[in-house]
Amino acid sequence: MTGFGIDHLPYGVASHEGRELVVVRLDDDVIDLAALAAVSPPGLDPAVLAGPSLGPLMAAGPGAWAAVRAWLQDVLPGSSAGRIPLAEVEMRMRRPFMVADYVDFYASLNHASNVGRIFRPDAEPLLPNWRHLPVGYHGRAGTVVPSGTPIVRPAGQRRPGADGRPGFGPSQALDIEAELGFVVGAPSRMGEPVPAGAFADHVFGVTLLNDWSARDIQAWEYVPLGPFLGKSFATSISPWITPLSALQDVRTPLPGQDPEPLDYLQVAEPAGYAIDLEVVVNGTVVSRPPYASMYWSPAQMLAHMTVNGASLRTGDLYGSGTISGPDRDQRGSFLELSWGGTEPFALADGTTRTYLQDGDTVTIRATAGSITLGEVAGTITSR
Amino acid sequence: MTGFGIDHLPYGVASHEGRELVVVRLDDDVIDLAALAAVSPPGLDPAVLAGPSLGPLMAAGPGAWAAVRAWLQDVLPGSSAGRIPLAEVEMRMRRPFMVADYVDFYASLNHASNVGRIFRPDAEPLLPNWRHLPVGYHGRAGTVVPSGTPIVRPAGQRRPGADGRPGFGPSQALDIEAELGFVVGAPSRMGEPVPAGAFADHVFGVTLLNDWSARDIQAWEYVPLGPFLGKSFATSISPWITPLSALQDVRTPLPGQDPEPLDYLQVAEPAGYAIDLEVVVNGTVVSRPPYASMYWSPAQMLAHMTVNGASLRTGDLYGSGTISGPDRDQRGSFLELSWGGTEPFALADGTTRTYLQDGDTVTIRATAGSITLGEVAGTITSR
Repeated sequence: MTGFGIDHLPYGVASHEGRELVVVRLDDDVIDLAALAAVSPPGLDPAVLAGPSLGPLMAAGPGAWAAVRAWLQDVLPGSSAGRIPLAEVEMRMRRPFMVADYVDFYASLNHASNVGRIFRPDAEPLLPNWRHLPVGYHGRAGTVVPSGTPIVRPAGQRRPGADGRPGFGPSQALDIEAELGFVVGAPSRMGEPVPAGAFADHVFGVTLLNDWSARDIQAWEYVPLGPFLGKSFATSISPWITPLSALQDVRTPLPGQDPEPLDYLQVAEPAGYAIDLEVVVNGTVVSRPPYASMYWSPAQMLAHMTVNGASLRTGDLYGSGTISGPDRDQRGSFLELSWGGTEPFALADGTTRTYLQDGDTVTIRATAGSITLGEVAGTITSR
Repeated sequence: MTGFGIDHLPYGVASHEGRELVVVRLDDDVIDLAALAAVSPPGLDPAVLAGPSLGPLMAAGPGAWAAVRAWLQDVLPGSSAGRIPLAEVEMRMRRPFMVADYVDFYASLNHASNVGRIFRPDAEPLLPNWRHLPVGYHGRAGTVVPSGTPIVRPAGQRRPGADGRPGFGPSQALDIEAELGFVVGAPSRMGEPVPAGAFADHVFGVTLLNDWSARDIQAWEYVPLGPFLGKSFATSISPWITPLSALQDVRTPLPGQDPEPLDYLQVAEPAGYAIDLEVVVNGTVVSRPPYASMYWSPAQMLAHMTVNGASLRTGDLYGSGTISGPDRDQRGSFLELSWGGTEPFALADGTTRTYLQDGDTVTIRATAGSITLGEVAGTITSR
C-alpha cells in the first residue's frame, strides 16, 4: 500500500530527459499521459494532456476530468505505456500550474478560538462575524512555491519597544500553518456567483499547503487591513494535486454549524473530508490535525468567495486556513502548539521549540482513507 | 495642448483591423510601435514591441524603457510611420498587461484620518502602526478590469440588525476610491528585498485606478483579516500606462514624515508627484484629490512590499490607496465626501448622493503638468 494506487492518481508535472510532462503518479511510477494517450487514445482531445502545464486540463472542466480519470482507471492496469520510475523524474521545481489568485481562509473553529484566546485573553475568542461567514483574505500568488523550496527567514518591523520605535530584523516568531489548498480548474464569469452546489464543477483538486507566517511582523502590521508581509514571503504547496474524485470515499458530514448559515452558504452533506494530517518537524511528529474537524467546508468557501460576483480563473488557489482539532496535539501552528510562545514543545532530539529555528525542516503529510496526499516540505534558511 | 504630447507617450495595447498592437498615444493618434520599428529601427530587439501584450517590454527593464523612449522622442517628430488615428482603434478591452499580484496601500494621511474619525469617532483616528509603515493588503488580480467595463453592484452580507441575523443583498453603500496604480515591469528574486532607491529600476509606469468598494460588506467582514469581498468584485484601471520618465518634471517633496521612517523606508527627495486628480460623477466634478498630499511615496511602498523577501513579477500592480487632500472637496471616496453617508452631496442635475446609484458613471481624470493621464471610467449596473 503506497497510498498512490489506482484509486488516487494525483496530477503533477514531471521533468524527464529535458521535457516537462503532465503525469499522474501510480505507486512508485509516474505515467506520461501524452505517451499513454498515443497508445491508448482517451475519449477527448489529447492536446489537454500535452504539457508543459496542467492548465489546459484544469480549464477543460469536470467532464474532461471525469473522462481522463475513467480512461486512466480503465487502461492503466493493462498498459505500461508512458510509465517512468518516480526516481527518474524530477517534479517540476516550478509549480505545476500558474497560480492565478491565492486566497486564504480561517475555517477552523478550534484554530480561530485558540488564536482569539492567545491574543485577546479577556474577550470572547470568536469575533462576531466568524460563525456567519468563512473569513478570508487575499495572499500573494507570486510567492506560492513548490515543496522543497528553501524558505528564507523574512525580515520586517515588529511592535515598538519601550523607546516607542518599531523593532526591525529577521522574524523572531516564524511559524507554519498546516492547511489544505483547493485548486480551481474551470473558470467563472465576473458578475456571476458560483453556488456551493457547483463546487465539483470548478474545483480540480486538492494539495497540501503550508502558509508560512511571521507572527511578530503580522501582529504589528495587521490592523486595519489584515495580514500582509507576515505572510507574503512564501507559501509552499505539494507538486501533486489529488483530484476531488479520489476523495469521494472520505466525504464526511461537517461537525455542525450554529447558527444555520444564510441560503447561499447552505451546502449538501456530506460536505467535509476525513483527511488526517501530520506535521513533522525535523523528523518528530508534533501534531496530527484532522481536516474533518473544520467548521466551514470548501464548497462554502467557494460560494462565499464569489457571492459578490468575483470571477474564478484557472489556477486560483484557496487555502482552508490552519487546520486545528480540539486536542492539544491536533494544533496546526506553532503559535497554538506553544500557546503564543509561552509553552515550548519538545522534539525527539531533546531540543524544544516555540517558533522555527534556522535549519528546521517542516513536512506536512496527509492520508485520506487508502490515499496518501503528496507531502509539502520546506527548510528555513537565514538571509 | 492635448496632454498627450511628445513629453508623455503613454503605452497601451490597441486593437486595429483584427490585430493587437503595442502603441503609444501621441495627441489624437496612436503609434504602432512594431510598424514604426520596421521603418526606423530602435536600438534594441524589436521583438519586445511586437504585441499583443506590453509584457515583454515591461520585463525588459529600465535600460530598454529608456532606449524606447529616447528612440520615440527622436523619430516621432519626423515620421508618420505606424500612425493611426485614435478614433480608428479600440483600446483593448482586456487589460494591456496581465496583472500578476495586486496590492493596495492606504498611504494618504487625510484619508486614513477621515476613515478613523468616521468609524471610531471617540478614538485616536490613526492606528499605532500607520506612521511607521505603509499599511497595505493584497487584492484580487483576476477582477482588475479596464476602463469602460460595467461594474455589477455586488451582493453580500451586512452587519446583523435587531434580529441578530446578518443582512444579505446588493450593497447599499457602493463607493469608489480614487487612486494611482503603479505597474511593475522588471521582476525581482524571492528572498531579495528591493531598496527604495531601486524604484525606477522596477516600476514601468503609472495608471489611474478606481478601487470600487462596498462599505457595508467591508464593515462586517474585515476583522481580523482585512477587506475581502467588499473590494474583490472589481478594480478598474486606465488602459494607458504613463511611463515614469514622463513624470520627472512633476516630482515634488513629500509633505513630511514624522517620526522619521526606519532605514529601509528612507527615500531620496523629491519622492512625491504633483499629479492632480478629478473625480467626475455623471459629469459633475465632485472632488479634486491632490496626489502631492500623500504621506507615503511609491518608492517606500515598493521597498516595504519586498522587505520580507517577497519577489516582484512583471505585471504586479500596486495602488496608492485613496487619495484625499486636506480639504473637503479633495476627498477621494464617497465615504468621506458624504461623511459616512450622513452628509449627502449634490450633483449638477440637482440630485444628491451618499453612495453610488445604479446607472451612475464615475470617471477619474488627472493631469501632471503638461500631461493628461489616461482616464478610468465605469458605470454601475444592477445584477
